[in-house]
Amino acid sequence: MRTRPLKVALLGCGVVGSEVARIMTTHADDLAARIGAPVELAGVAVRRPSKVREGIDPALVTTDATALVKRGDIDVVVEVIGGIEPARALITTAFEHGASVVSANKALLAQDGAALHAAAEQHGRDLYYEAAVAGAIPLIRPLRESLAGDKVNRVLGIVNGTTNFILDKMDSTGAGYQEALDEATALGYAEADPTADVEGFDAAAKAAILAGIAFHTRVRLDDVYREGMTEVTAADFASAKEMGCTIKLLAICERAEDGASVTARVHPAMIPLTHPLASVRGAYNAVFVESDASGQLMFYGPGAGGSPTASAVLGDLVAVCRNRLSGATGPGESAYAALPVSGMGDVVTRYHISLDVADKPGVLAQVATVFAEHGVSIDTVRQQGKDGEASLVVVTHRASDAALGGTVEALRKLDTVRGVASIMRVEGE
Amino acid sequence: MRTRPLKVALLGCGVVGSEVARIMTTHADDLAARIGAPVELAGVAVRRPSKVREGIDPALVTTDATALVKRGDIDVVVEVIGGIEPARALITTAFEHGASVVSANKALLAQDGAALHAAAEQHGRDLYYEAAVAGAIPLIRPLRESLAGDKVNRVLGIVNGTTNFILDKMDSTGAGYQEALDEATALGYAEADPTADVEGFDAAAKAAILAGIAFHTRVRLDDVYREGMTEVTAADFASAKEMGCTIKLLAICERAEDGASVTARVHPAMIPLTHPLASVRGAYNAVFVESDASGQLMFYGPGAGGSPTASAVLGDLVAVCRNRLSGATGPGESAYAALPVSGMGDVVTRYHISLDVADKPGVLAQVATVFAEHGVSIDTVRQQGKDGEASLVVVTHRASDAALGGTVEALRKLDTVRGVASIMRVEGE
Repeated sequence: MRTRPLKVALLGCGVVGSEVARIMTTHADDLAARIGAPVELAGVAVRRPSKVREGIDPALVTTDATALVKRGDIDVVVEVIGGIEPARALITTAFEHGASVVSANKALLAQDGAALHAAAEQHGRDLYYEAAVAGAIPLIRPLRESLAGDKVNRVLGIVNGTTNFILDKMDSTGAGYQEALDEATALGYAEADPTADVEGFDAAAKAAILAGIAFHTRVRLDDVYREGMTEVTAADFASAKEMGCTIKLLAICERAEDGASVTARVHPAMIPLTHPLASVRGAYNAVFVESDASGQLMFYGPGAGGSPTASAVLGDLVAVCRNRLSGATGPGESAYAALPVSGMGDVVTRYHISLDVADKPGVLAQVATVFAEHGVSIDTVRQQGKDGEASLVVVTHRASDAALGGTVEALRKLDTVRGVASIMRVEGE
Repeated sequence: MRTRPLKVALLGCGVVGSEVARIMTTHADDLAARIGAPVELAGVAVRRPSKVREGIDPALVTTDATALVKRGDIDVVVEVIGGIEPARALITTAFEHGASVVSANKALLAQDGAALHAAAEQHGRDLYYEAAVAGAIPLIRPLRESLAGDKVNRVLGIVNGTTNFILDKMDSTGAGYQEALDEATALGYAEADPTADVEGFDAAAKAAILAGIAFHTRVRLDDVYREGMTEVTAADFASAKEMGCTIKLLAICERAEDGASVTARVHPAMIPLTHPLASVRGAYNAVFVESDASGQLMFYGPGAGGSPTASAVLGDLVAVCRNRLSGATGPGESAYAALPVSGMGDVVTRYHISLDVADKPGVLAQVATVFAEHGVSIDTVRQQGKDGEASLVVVTHRASDAALGGTVEALRKLDTVRGVASIMRVEGE
């Protein structure tokens, strides 16, 4: 074994960073044996140097992250700051100064992955980011490497633990959205400002990363259709139950049936209770991957948290260190397929639509005519009347989002339709 | 991209091999883009050259596998023959002649993994074998690489599709073992001679491979305790149901609580219906991995079949070809921990024991005394009497297999115990 240690600079020392530092210390011998050389924490860049960080030599702590990555003797930079800047500038500087990078930064990868990969390649260094998607669950590596000889057609997953906790709570207790969010906040599952989670931004970043790798095509955050789950109601769960379904916030990356384009989207959807994703509870994550040869694979585990994320970071650290020792680099960006990324209008799926309608003869015929005129075929209709008002619940066969959008627009114009109470996609069948 | 192709020799052209050849042809452009160089099928070694193999140039077919691997221009040998010889000699010869090897051969890896890894390392070549365990499910790579910075404590999985099909059938229909086996055979899920599957040999080989990688310790097939599932009865399933459990054939690799030794075993066990492995249906496989930092991960998918296994082989092929191009090798054997492998007596778990006893006063006291004398603590007892006979169902707290064995031996000596109807371990709690 080589005795000169590989030097690691840690950028950020919050929940994940401090756990990375802890494991690097407590498991130093294991890491050395698995890498073939010892690894040494050479510096830790933080914002608040006065904070006491147990187990970390205060002499290693600095507020000057840029100087740390510019030192020139750093082999690997571990970036767990999050956000776009200064993370982007620091990673770029790290490559320029000869370091490889392990990052957990989904937002940055989703926005600027192509540029960062290009910088890594230009300098002959690695960019690994298993921790950016679904915490400890090995997903990036299986997609990039295990399925490298297969053709992935679909990635369908629960990739945000906060929203899964909230939806699971609504499902199991009948609570409304706000009540479930409050509990998630009290238990530490939701942040004080939950926007990134509940509006689907976090999941959309992960969808962009997954779609890019799965389809060998650049998919940016802007390419991902995004709909949050703040408008999911207890009534939606009741409707889902009647259909033998539950509701999950899903990230879905699909190759079009003709194979000529791809889509990526995040939105709440009904899925059958018999689908394995339906039983993913609490803050857990799970991702289905459907490929030509391998069929359906599922990956399940804790999607967030300091320790699980640190596990993913350290797995990457070992791989990157091994590459340093052998003078090789791992797989870089693979975007050769360069498929067009279609908008939401081209997505084909099923829909569950609740309409408030006047309770009089001919309404169903009117509504059915609108669906037919837009080429949207109806699977089932359930009509319930009360006090001169009635509700119509329509479940469609597969139709494009554009066709469904046109249908809904026309429905809203009908005098007999008082309102569109909810529209929800039905997935996983 | 390099234009000179990498040359691949395929050993074996059965269900898996022919699918590997087919995908290499139909997805040649994708593979080339992902590898950075084209790959060419340079030869196919078979036993019956006269058999027509669609899509394979007859000029590539040979019965002389040894000459093929000795050609000297082969970059990668894909071994999908199975069995010990001639696979072992061919793989060794391949390394000697400069080729890397991708194998799907669980039996060989479990028996001679250490020697094969040593040969690969001696010649600076790769030995990859994702397809040897759980078909298309990425498991070897996540364990070897994604969890390389973590400490795995337990691997618990369903790794044999044939037996899972049979047990699932018994569970869902109430069928007996023979009836369910007959159906599995008729549907092609079981081979004409099902011994390797139903006696647990196949799962034991996989357990040896998984334990070796998970614990960085050499674990040979002989180290794995093995109990088949041919004696599981419909009555056992009824007992399991009463406990809110089902029965699965599990491969279990565990680090002892003190961390100083490991065990590997394959046997039928009751697991709670709420455990994710309980809902793994038909011929699917699923493996739970429990680690210090990452917590519980699960990997799920088709555990066998030509296409899924070919997907795993091709993922390895891409990785090995990339390594060839960069002049590096992937992770080799990691056995530095060299933990002792304990026997079954040291395994600690819970037990479900059915006894046929005389229906008279004092029997329960006698039986309870025997358990106490052997240090096995009882969780629940259920007593049912009929016609002067009675049955006692005892579920224990956690105890060592040695202690349980002693208990059962002493129970058999009691006059009031007519027989031990069944003993089954209870896992996954």
